[in-house]
Amino acid sequence: MNRPLIALTLALAATLPAHAADPAPNGITMPDGYKDWRLLSTHMRSDNNTLRAVLGNDIAIKAAREGKTNPWPEGAVLAKMVWKAKKHEKWEAASEPGDFVHAEFMTKNTARFASTGGWGYARWLGQDQKPYGKDAGFAQECVACHTPVKDNDWVFTRPVKLP
Amino acid sequence: MNRPLIALTLALAATLPAHAADPAPNGITMPDGYKDWRLLSTHMRSDNNTLRAVLGNDIAIKAAREGKTNPWPEGAVLAKMVWKAKKHEKWEAASEPGDFVHAEFMTKNTARFASTGGWGYARWLGQDQKPYGKDAGFAQECVACHTPVKDNDWVFTRPVKLP
Repeated sequence: MNRPLIALTLALAATLPAHAADPAPNGITMPDGYKDWRLLSTHMRSDNNTLRAVLGNDIAIKAAREGKTNPWPEGAVLAKMVWKAKKHEKWEAASEPGDFVHAEFMTKNTARFASTGGWGYARWLGQDQKPYGKDAGFAQECVACHTPVKDNDWVFTRPVKLP
Repeated sequence: MNRPLIALTLALAATLPAHAADPAPNGITMPDGYKDWRLLSTHMRSDNNTLRAVLGNDIAIKAAREGKTNPWPEGAVLAKMVWKAKKHEKWEAASEPGDFVHAEFMTKNTARFASTGGWGYARWLGQDQKPYGKDAGFAQECVACHTPVKDNDWVFTRPVKLP
C-alpha cells in the first residue's frame, strides 16, 4: 500500500466505532450506545461470583417506570453487563466489579423472535466482545435458563424501586 | 377551604416535582434527574446486606471514561443508590435489590466544601427522602468513613471496566 493510501485507510478507520462487534449468530447486532442507557437493576450472583448491572433502552425505562413490564413492550431492550466480583481493597465486606465478563441483551420483538418466546437473545464475551454461540441455536440455551421466569415474560430482572 | 380554592391548590400541587426533598443540613439540594444519570459502578456489601448502584453526572462520566478520577474534576457528582439485598425467588444464588434504603451524593467543589476534603456529602433516607443529619456537622461522619480512600480523592468507587 502506498503512503497516501495508508493515511486514507487510517483516517477512515478512525471514523469507525471503537468496538464494532460482530453480530450474534442469530443476526442480532450490538445496540449502539448501550453503555449510556439508564439503570433497571443490579444483581450479585454467588454461584459464579459476579456483579451485574442491567440497563434499559428508552422504551424499557419508560415501561419500568410505569410498571408495565409483564409483558414488556415491543422494542424494549435490556442490556446486562457482567463483571467478576472482587473484594474492595479498602472495605473488606464490599464486592466491586473486576474483570468484564460479558454483555448480554434481550430484545423484545414478538414476531421476529417467536421461536425464543418473543425475545431475541445475544451475548458478547469479554473486552474483545466476541459473539457467543456457534449458530443461531445458541439462543435455546438462553430460553432454557430463563424458563423459571416464563410467567414474568421470561425476564429475571425486576426494575428497582426508586423514591 | 372552599371548593374553588381546593381545586386551585390541588392543581398547583400537581405542578410540583413528585419528590421535592428538603435540602441536607449542609445546604446541599438533591440533584435534579439523578435517576437518569449513567452508571459508574455497582457494589454488594455483606456487612449490611445491601446492593448499590453508583451513577455519575455528565462531568463525572466524562472523567471516568477518560480515566481522570484522581482527583475527580470540579463539578463531578456521584450518586449512590442503596437497596436492601434479597434472594431472587427464581434464582437462589442471586441477590436482587429489595427495599430502597437511601440515596447518597458526593459533590466535588473544592472551595465550597474545603472543610470536608473538597467534597460535599448528602444523604436522603428511604422512599420519603428525609435528609440525613441533625446539623451540618453530619458530614464529618462521612469524611471519617471515607478516610481509608483519602489517597483516591476520598472516593471508594472505581468506575467499571467496559469494552
